[in-house]
Amino acid sequence: MSAGRVVVVGLGPGGSDWLTPESARELAEAEDLVGYGPYLDRVPAGPQVRHASDNRVELDRARLALDLAAGGRRVAVVSGGDPGVFAMAAAVYEALDAEAGGTGRRDVEVRVCPGITAMQAAAARAGAPLGHDFCAISLSDNLKPWDVVLRRLRLAAEADFVIALYNPVSRARPWQLGAAFDALRAVRDPATPVILGRAIGRPDERLTVTTLAAADPAAADMSTVVIVGSSHTRTLAGPGGARVYTPRRYGTGG
Amino acid sequence: MSAGRVVVVGLGPGGSDWLTPESARELAEAEDLVGYGPYLDRVPAGPQVRHASDNRVELDRARLALDLAAGGRRVAVVSGGDPGVFAMAAAVYEALDAEAGGTGRRDVEVRVCPGITAMQAAAARAGAPLGHDFCAISLSDNLKPWDVVLRRLRLAAEADFVIALYNPVSRARPWQLGAAFDALRAVRDPATPVILGRAIGRPDERLTVTTLAAADPAAADMSTVVIVGSSHTRTLAGPGGARVYTPRRYGTGG
Repeated sequence: MSAGRVVVVGLGPGGSDWLTPESARELAEAEDLVGYGPYLDRVPAGPQVRHASDNRVELDRARLALDLAAGGRRVAVVSGGDPGVFAMAAAVYEALDAEAGGTGRRDVEVRVCPGITAMQAAAARAGAPLGHDFCAISLSDNLKPWDVVLRRLRLAAEADFVIALYNPVSRARPWQLGAAFDALRAVRDPATPVILGRAIGRPDERLTVTTLAAADPAAADMSTVVIVGSSHTRTLAGPGGARVYTPRRYGTGG
Repeated sequence: MSAGRVVVVGLGPGGSDWLTPESARELAEAEDLVGYGPYLDRVPAGPQVRHASDNRVELDRARLALDLAAGGRRVAVVSGGDPGVFAMAAAVYEALDAEAGGTGRRDVEVRVCPGITAMQAAAARAGAPLGHDFCAISLSDNLKPWDVVLRRLRLAAEADFVIALYNPVSRARPWQLGAAFDALRAVRDPATPVILGRAIGRPDERLTVTTLAAADPAAADMSTVVIVGSSHTRTLAGPGGARVYTPRRYGTGG
């Protein structure tokens, strides 16, 4: 008899081309799939019991998965991108951590399978903007105060990181990306390359290469990741359109 | 007749379990493989011409790949991890950018396939330390002045990012990781969780979960990625050993 367990699986940003063999195997071997509905829809049909939920209830989803596993089931929590990056893996550990014991959740074996995350997909399509030091910041202020976001943006700009912005916009958060661009314009050159990668890897993917001066927040939606270059990031004209890269060398070093 | 092209492929950090279907296909379809010897050794035997090189000559490798492609060959540049993160993709664009034209390199079609990068693999094994805002910094001062590294570390600590350190140590750079820990100890709590992920995904993988106070630079080598938690990162005892995660929620927000 096999004990129950939770595996947190990332589908990657697009189709099956970026789904790792490890994640594909874990999905096929799971008895229960727990996740946001549109992610579950991307898992090939099979005998697994599917527990689809809304996007807003990560902790409920995590608790359900742990409870099923505590009852002996092999559960896969299905996440987009990399479950470890702004996604379900942290929610599962939060649910574990909140237990004082007694429910059995604390004893569940949890494993995380890494996946390609949105900034990697957008970076690959655009060239190599993440070739030098970078950071990733979620613009969602559902889970942190906006002044923390602003402060991080300013320090990241001062440190001259390439900056990837996750969750740039949603129906409930329409102004944050514009405010982030404004904060960055105060410190970074207007000609700094900016990439908007929307739904990269899916049929409706759209890649936009622009500048910080021209970047339009209205061009981003919930499926978009934004990458803002450092002072060293360069745009190159090429046969397939503009490409953006950040050299490995920085300043006068070397 | 198909035109030549360069595809920059990432093998991921470990075995074939983390090699994406896209990258596997590109490797199989390539006529020439260009890369650091140990990476080429991980590509299954096939009819491809193999151009193995030393680790230090990224730009030579990139030029070779572009020249082969300009001559009509389908070339895969083979990188570990994600070629877009501190790896060969930026080197290929640097080689393109350096050409004033005339050699034909500028007209070569270049495509990048994303891969799982070392910090994602180490994070997955350790729990979910990258669940909140984070940054990635290469400690190599071959390509940038050390004072830039130090300044970034200080600003990243001030911004309270989770910090992933790439290239923490090499034979020629024995003291940098210790200096980085010292810089972080000056600002961050001694109990801050630190993860050392060595060769994650390979048979000799080793995961160490410790604290900033106790972190030993001598425990890291060239195959190690180091992840230093933020002020919110937590360590949990679990059946399989300590697990580290960073909650999605920050401060008093939400």
